[in-house]
Amino acid sequence: MAEPRTRRQRGQDTLARLDTDVDLWVATAGATPHLIPLSFLWDGATLLISTPEASPTGRNLRATGRVRLGFGPTRDVVLIEATADAVPAAEIPPEVGDAFAVRTGFDPRALRTRYLYFRIRPRRVQAWREENELAGRDLMRDGEWLPD
Amino acid sequence: MAEPRTRRQRGQDTLARLDTDVDLWVATAGATPHLIPLSFLWDGATLLISTPEASPTGRNLRATGRVRLGFGPTRDVVLIEATADAVPAAEIPPEVGDAFAVRTGFDPRALRTRYLYFRIRPRRVQAWREENELAGRDLMRDGEWLPD
Repeated sequence: MAEPRTRRQRGQDTLARLDTDVDLWVATAGATPHLIPLSFLWDGATLLISTPEASPTGRNLRATGRVRLGFGPTRDVVLIEATADAVPAAEIPPEVGDAFAVRTGFDPRALRTRYLYFRIRPRRVQAWREENELAGRDLMRDGEWLPD
Repeated sequence: MAEPRTRRQRGQDTLARLDTDVDLWVATAGATPHLIPLSFLWDGATLLISTPEASPTGRNLRATGRVRLGFGPTRDVVLIEATADAVPAAEIPPEVGDAFAVRTGFDPRALRTRYLYFRIRPRRVQAWREENELAGRDLMRDGEWLPD
């Protein structure tokens, strides 16, 4: 097992993943737990995803405003607890909608199914690889990045 | 984009993943959605996982008995909706506990923290890679594998 990374290194790896990954796992809670992979766009502070308004994820997010996100393979994870606010397509600035379409490969504005965007604000961020990185896994708490 | 796989091929790929993968994503619902990677053991019909009794996943599973599991990279996923029954370590047959320890690399029976096993029975299984595999993604419904 590799030596545990410093918090600074984990923060850099986490930001690199947010900048370059295309997909994440999205967990929401309704009558039953829901989990689905979706594509996302990161702007340095928030994530943008999009899903049909009538989908389980869309309904759960509108009902609860809470989401948990998982990135990466299961032995190099980033986990984010976050709030989610629905944004109608008409309120997405054109350049943001375009950037989302380029990054994710799909453009909800062009689809006949009714989609919503969701603006996701991280409240807690954790990152670990193996058991020896469970200590020190918190990188953000209460919406604030922790110091290195 | 590759041609969509037949249902038969998806079934074979899914069983191969259950046989050989070590980890999965476990989504549960409490006051907020929870998501965490865990290791598992597949016996051909059910999955066995283990988590501390007091963890969010342990508490949610005992309260709801419902779980959603995600396997694989986000562009080659298997998703399982399932029920979960708690099994105290004392009720796990020794050979099952041993097989779990070998597969997952940890043995909850040997730990001081109080762990529970959970026996997970799939009710619905889905598998897809890209958008062109969304049609036909159901492999099991109501606990029954669909015919090829």
